[in-house]
Amino acid sequence: MSQFSIAVLAGDGIGPEVMQEANKVLDAVEKKFSITLNRTEFPVGGFAIDTEGEALPAKTLLGCEQADAILFGSIGGPKWDTLPLEQRPERAALLTLRSHFDLFSNLRPARIYPGLEGLSPLREDIAKSGVDVLVVRELTSGIYFGQPKGREGEGEEEFAYDTMRYSKREIRRIAVAAFEAAQKRRGKVTSVDKANVLATSRLWREVAEEVAKDFPDVELDHIYIDNATMQIMKNPAQFDVMLCSNLFGDIVSDECAMMTGSMGLLPSASMNEDGFGLYEPAGGSAPDIAGQGIANPIAQILSAAMMLRFSMNLNDAADAIEKAVVATLEKGVLTGELLPEDKREQASNTSQVGDEIV
Amino acid sequence: MSQFSIAVLAGDGIGPEVMQEANKVLDAVEKKFSITLNRTEFPVGGFAIDTEGEALPAKTLLGCEQADAILFGSIGGPKWDTLPLEQRPERAALLTLRSHFDLFSNLRPARIYPGLEGLSPLREDIAKSGVDVLVVRELTSGIYFGQPKGREGEGEEEFAYDTMRYSKREIRRIAVAAFEAAQKRRGKVTSVDKANVLATSRLWREVAEEVAKDFPDVELDHIYIDNATMQIMKNPAQFDVMLCSNLFGDIVSDECAMMTGSMGLLPSASMNEDGFGLYEPAGGSAPDIAGQGIANPIAQILSAAMMLRFSMNLNDAADAIEKAVVATLEKGVLTGELLPEDKREQASNTSQVGDEIV
Ligand SMILES: CC(C)[C@H](C(=O)O)[C@@H](O)C(=O)O
Ligand SMILES: CC(C)[C@H](C(=O)O)[C@@H](O)C(=O)O
Repeated sequence: MSQFSIAVLAGDGIGPEVMQEANKVLDAVEKKFSITLNRTEFPVGGFAIDTEGEALPAKTLLGCEQADAILFGSIGGPKWDTLPLEQRPERAALLTLRSHFDLFSNLRPARIYPGLEGLSPLREDIAKSGVDVLVVRELTSGIYFGQPKGREGEGEEEFAYDTMRYSKREIRRIAVAAFEAAQKRRGKVTSVDKANVLATSRLWREVAEEVAKDFPDVELDHIYIDNATMQIMKNPAQFDVMLCSNLFGDIVSDECAMMTGSMGLLPSASMNEDGFGLYEPAGGSAPDIAGQGIANPIAQILSAAMMLRFSMNLNDAADAIEKAVVATLEKGVLTGELLPEDKREQASNTSQVGDEIV
Repeated sequence: MSQFSIAVLAGDGIGPEVMQEANKVLDAVEKKFSITLNRTEFPVGGFAIDTEGEALPAKTLLGCEQADAILFGSIGGPKWDTLPLEQRPERAALLTLRSHFDLFSNLRPARIYPGLEGLSPLREDIAKSGVDVLVVRELTSGIYFGQPKGREGEGEEEFAYDTMRYSKREIRRIAVAAFEAAQKRRGKVTSVDKANVLATSRLWREVAEEVAKDFPDVELDHIYIDNATMQIMKNPAQFDVMLCSNLFGDIVSDECAMMTGSMGLLPSASMNEDGFGLYEPAGGSAPDIAGQGIANPIAQILSAAMMLRFSMNLNDAADAIEKAVVATLEKGVLTGELLPEDKREQASNTSQVGDEIV
């Protein structure tokens, strides 16, 4: 019987309560598919700061190293926002995990589910045009990690600087990830850059063109980041896979997520070359609704499905979860934020949605 | 009688035809306000490449130096897109003019006009919530111009790099511009950054806070660029002035422009510390509709109004133009792209709209 081990990092805010539902679903998967998914919980984020003194304790990192994948909840909240930047949950835990495990390949799907078009901030005809985008974001290089980065000088001439930097190798591996994803989808990659201004973008474009030659069944086009933010609003259905650098992917993936109007449904995967990965919901820790049992667990549950698919190659189990989610949405078992104001009293709570998916 | 001289750079695509309408309006302003607006035309962009061999000929630059302001049309088109990057119209002309004249302060208003909400790609309730944003973008520094920028190494380890760089002085002067603009508007500045990742953003935030102390009547808040692209979609009416670095302003201003759904109405100003400026429509050269007499001249005309206001201090004349534009829109004298598909036969052409404003 196949066995896998999962480091479960629930984190802050709604993290623990939505993780509970993901765990229920994984329990059901174990039974149905006769596999063992050993899960060990570790503290992370603000909770870890409070209990262990730091956002990513050594034992948590070690636990992640020993696991086949990390199932991550969400971290951060106003309580820890006054800490020095380097100690805050998002930086100290998330950016460290990304770089420690070389999780360069970040997949962020954004899709407007049939029946939920009304949630989108876009005009009805645009929301109904069949929007299903996968943002493939480079996650361990670019201006996030490029050196030098710092501050120099004095008085009004004091200046700060950051370095955007990409090697061909770094660009190639994320481009390959995007093309491979496109092969399994609608066969189109749109590479986002600012090649009319940035040297890194010019190299990016060149390497994307090189990689495209190995994927004759996938179409490649290029778009400037400024135009991309416009087209996502005007005609998001034109996009299949959007290939982005770290900074541009941060921007594009959030705009795409918002465009769906249902952030609580969006999972994400961050993987390295060995298939190890961190899986987390696209939304944040939502401290305003934490503890009330009304948070949407679907993004966490779909993140678990991505984990089964990409880190454990359990495609049948992943398919089963994804189908159960669609069925649950179609049946109208929805948390409150997915319902129009005047239908909120019909809302299901966090655990009812989890049960339905199980 | 006051006299001003204007370098008129009509450029490519729809540039010349919309400039003709702006000139008509400026003729009317001369008469009504008893001033002289001496205009001299100079070649720029693709047209200048074809006729003079370069996108920004020396005589054009000299003509701009001798003028009080530059009224700019639009440049570029597929014909020149195969040239080496450094020679292409956008880079060779626009970026050079910005840096040559130190046009650091770029004002890009984006507003959804009452009655034209249907053009917005946003949901009706959002489009009708009273959207009127001014993006104040730093235009001569940041990652556009930061050194070093280039390419090194070989094979797969070859890498490219760009430097994002800001001094306190550079941040302060654009922040002051944003606060001054907010004082004349709704008294709110939202500074856009990525301070959780970028050293330049941290300095940006600090200086914005310092400047805020000198403007007790203006409220300041900060937003991350990723969240900004979401909020512009979800609730754009929350923004008054958005203060942005060069790259983030490029992205945010285009998203805001698209959100209005009426790019043909949006002007922009790029100014230096001496009040000299370049004024141009937010939209591009639109080669697909050039020469047909159907382009919307309003963005060009409102750019001329901004020129009168900011470079010539002719506020009455600027007010008069802006009022005439609003009256023209209210009267329904509209170019085709502002009308629903089924009412396109009622469209006015470029010169009819110009005449109405005159
Ligand atoms: C928290 C922050 C550093 C992070 C990022 O910018 O990558 C977040 O916005 C994200 O997109 O995962
Ligand atoms: C043409 C290009 C270099 C330019 C920019 O990025 O600044 C344009 O997008 C703009 O916003 O004026």
